[in-house]
Amino acid sequence: MSIENVVYIGSKPVMNYCLAVLTSLKDEGSSVMLKARGRAISTAVDVAEITKNRFKENLTVENIDIGTEELESPEGRMRNVSTITIVLKN
Amino acid sequence: MSIENVVYIGSKPVMNYCLAVLTSLKDEGSSVMLKARGRAISTAVDVAEITKNRFKENLTVENIDIGTEELESPEGRMRNVSTITIVLKN
Repeated sequence: MSIENVVYIGSKPVMNYCLAVLTSLKDEGSSVMLKARGRAISTAVDVAEITKNRFKENLTVENIDIGTEELESPEGRMRNVSTITIVLKN
Repeated sequence: MSIENVVYIGSKPVMNYCLAVLTSLKDEGSSVMLKARGRAISTAVDVAEITKNRFKENLTVENIDIGTEELESPEGRMRNVSTITIVLKN
C-alpha cells in the first residue's frame, strides 16, 4: 500500500492539521498518514478524533503504529523519542 | 479476550508506569492494557516503547485504539478529550 499523503503533526493549532487532513482526503477511498513524535503524539490523536467526529463521520482508522526514533540533541547527545503513525481512510 | 491488568497513565514519571507494566507481565502469555487521556497519551506511548526496548524485547503490541471521552470541567462545561488504549502481551 502506498500512501502519498503524509501530514506531519507539530505544535501548530489542531485545526490547522485537521484542515490539511481534510484536504488530503478529498477523493473517495483516499488515505492520509499522520506522523508525530514526542509531545505531539497527543495532538495527532486529537487531529484524528476531531476530523472523524466533527467533519467526516465515515472516516476509518486503518492502522496505528508506535515506534522509537533516535534524535541528536543540540548538544550532540543521542536521545530516544517515541513516534506514532495513524492512517486514516476516506 | 479479558484483560485484568490495566495501568492508567497520568503525570507521574514514566519509569513508575514501566514498573507497573513489568509487574503485570510476570507470567508468560499475560497481557496488560495501558489507558491514557489527553496529554498523557504521549507518556503511554513512551511507557510501551521503553518497556519493550529496554526491559522486555519479546513484548508485542497487540492492539492500539484511539477514542474520545466527554469530561465535565470544574466549571460544569462538557469538553472532549482524546484517549488511547495500548495492549501489550508477554
